[in-house]
Amino acid sequence: MFRKFDGAAYRWDGVEPHVYKEDSSVFRSVTKQVLFEREGDLPVQFRYFQVEPGGWSSLERHGHMHMVVIFRGRGHALIGGEVREVAEGDMMTIPSWAWHQFRADRGEPLGFFCLVNADRDAPSYPTEADLEEMRRAPAVAAFLDGKA
Amino acid sequence: MFRKFDGAAYRWDGVEPHVYKEDSSVFRSVTKQVLFEREGDLPVQFRYFQVEPGGWSSLERHGHMHMVVIFRGRGHALIGGEVREVAEGDMMTIPSWAWHQFRADRGEPLGFFCLVNADRDAPSYPTEADLEEMRRAPAVAAFLDGKA
Repeated sequence: MFRKFDGAAYRWDGVEPHVYKEDSSVFRSVTKQVLFEREGDLPVQFRYFQVEPGGWSSLERHGHMHMVVIFRGRGHALIGGEVREVAEGDMMTIPSWAWHQFRADRGEPLGFFCLVNADRDAPSYPTEADLEEMRRAPAVAAFLDGKA
Repeated sequence: MFRKFDGAAYRWDGVEPHVYKEDSSVFRSVTKQVLFEREGDLPVQFRYFQVEPGGWSSLERHGHMHMVVIFRGRGHALIGGEVREVAEGDMMTIPSWAWHQFRADRGEPLGFFCLVNADRDAPSYPTEADLEEMRRAPAVAAFLDGKA
């Protein structure tokens, strides 16, 4: 398999971007391209997510891990209780059951590769009580308000 | 785990580049950084290889697969019987037992991420007879001579 990259569009040959609906309570302006799906001795899925300026990925957690490499732009990530500035090339893991979200809050798209196990559990989303708990940390509250 | 990327040096925080010896019969001017090593439900290793201008990775094959994303520069890749021009963002798989090599033959470094299973077999290298066989394809011969 060979997927030529189109650096103007940030798209790969033969990959259809999946566009999430533009606005929802949990995410905004996110597309997903699945670049690799379980094959041979690699039981994983490798995806490219792009969050448009002002958008965010869903705030979620789950039992499976993520390994993430930022491929485009800048923004912030919430990983567990920590808010991080992220930029092209940064690599991070998201541990099992850590709340996480990516925000393109620097006026540019934020694109990242995300590796997961091909067999994985579904995410869960925060309750009002979870959000209240998270917001006790001022840095997290600022992040969630788009003011990181 | 969070590894800040240094875009001037193409290095990640906390990762020691492993420098292969400068010259050998099988590779030249290649460094390797292991960014992720089997953890949780991700039984894989994720590495960054960089081939300096004029260098090449080892010509090898093995039972395990690779998934590769070019992260820096341009060059050529031999994958099985095919020679491909590769550039930043291109994504490819290297099937089980396909001969493969990357060459930074465009006057710039060629850097790429490479995903493998954490449990994998050792590579084997071509015999003189294998090389002779490969060289029957003119494009492959040109590639091996650094004239792709």
